[in-house]
Amino acid sequence: MELDNINIVMVETTHPGNIGAAARAMKNMGLSRLRLVNPQCSIDGNAYARASGADEVLNQRVDYPSLTEAVADCSLVVGTSARTRTLVWPALTPAELGQRAVQASVEGAVAIVFGREHSGLTNDELQHCHYSVTIPTNPSFSSLNVAASIQIIGYEIFQHWQQGHAQEPPSRSRSESRADSGELEGFFQHLERVLVDIDFLDAGNPRQIMKRFRRLYQRAEPSRNEVNILRGMLSAVQKIKGAD
Amino acid sequence: MELDNINIVMVETTHPGNIGAAARAMKNMGLSRLRLVNPQCSIDGNAYARASGADEVLNQRVDYPSLTEAVADCSLVVGTSARTRTLVWPALTPAELGQRAVQASVEGAVAIVFGREHSGLTNDELQHCHYSVTIPTNPSFSSLNVAASIQIIGYEIFQHWQQGHAQEPPSRSRSESRADSGELEGFFQHLERVLVDIDFLDAGNPRQIMKRFRRLYQRAEPSRNEVNILRGMLSAVQKIKGAD
Repeated sequence: MELDNINIVMVETTHPGNIGAAARAMKNMGLSRLRLVNPQCSIDGNAYARASGADEVLNQRVDYPSLTEAVADCSLVVGTSARTRTLVWPALTPAELGQRAVQASVEGAVAIVFGREHSGLTNDELQHCHYSVTIPTNPSFSSLNVAASIQIIGYEIFQHWQQGHAQEPPSRSRSESRADSGELEGFFQHLERVLVDIDFLDAGNPRQIMKRFRRLYQRAEPSRNEVNILRGMLSAVQKIKGAD
Repeated sequence: MELDNINIVMVETTHPGNIGAAARAMKNMGLSRLRLVNPQCSIDGNAYARASGADEVLNQRVDYPSLTEAVADCSLVVGTSARTRTLVWPALTPAELGQRAVQASVEGAVAIVFGREHSGLTNDELQHCHYSVTIPTNPSFSSLNVAASIQIIGYEIFQHWQQGHAQEPPSRSRSESRADSGELEGFFQHLERVLVDIDFLDAGNPRQIMKRFRRLYQRAEPSRNEVNILRGMLSAVQKIKGAD
């Protein structure tokens, strides 16, 4: 079923109890795919106690050394963020995320990424995300427990799934389906190389402008075909550059 | 404020950690009034650890010997129920409850009642409630942690309360506001010129590829600033081309 395409990704979690509680929250909401990025604890008795019967979510979890690898196969990646960042990432409400995630899961893998207990996701990690999602909270006490965040996001996903909000999108051919995270990364690296070559980017400090390009193209959710066209354009620029 | 009129009532809770986690979930969602009916545990270090700073919710809690007394001053009482009861209680969804609770809190006290960890509320206790509320869950794994239930109900309450106090979104600066149609057209013409120059487009028939680029960039809804960066990149390509 579609919900099997939705992955909950926890980055560098430190408390086994939180991972167990997350597994329970997920299963309550019909989710079963848990990915751990570089977990800072083992899955111990405390984790299983808090999972309260959602053992198979824990047993079937997959560990990854980095976020990049954990989301490489995902065509929609959304990062949770408590703060309003200076450079505002395209932001979804939890309800909007519920709808998008269910829609996108019909076509491919989706990742919803939850950061460390105390410090959330880094800006670098957020750059792997197409969107950020912020759960509205009391501004004077805004730090949600990570499993509680997963509970709320799961609740919104399950509701939308249940309501059948997922209207069948017209089925797209493979070339028209959304590029996955790895393909998009390949494009960004290619773009950065060309922009440095043509002296548009300072090779020493390409970050700020690349961040803007990432935001722009992630927002557009390009298809495979579109990524190929964009890379074709980059190659044409390289040919000109090589000719001079 | 209105949310001070909304009481979270926990009946015969057995785990201090759940009471602490409930306090945190409440404070995250702007709620502060906790009532415990005949608690089966003490508020110990574990409770404070899980409260994670929401200490005053724990310290200001009020204990009651029975549910009747705990809700005596409340004009709206809603009981949470996982199961569909034989005798169907007037049922609300969490979103409906959020709306009703916020409305009713303007006039008087509201109670939302959460049952025991393993057995919920008795039918007798539900009879003290005007409504029941059921959080939608995976039918094959429906038992939510009590603090997780409070988190979801609190989230719905806070959202409705916040919408009633909806603030104007911060106005974007001119450079971050969306490019208008003329600016986007200027970019498309510039793009087409450069793509013909670098032999990526056939000057005689540029239409098909340009159509795709238009679709892609329109979907991204670029800001003025982003259009300027894109055009800066095009100018950099033209400079290279001019140099050959």
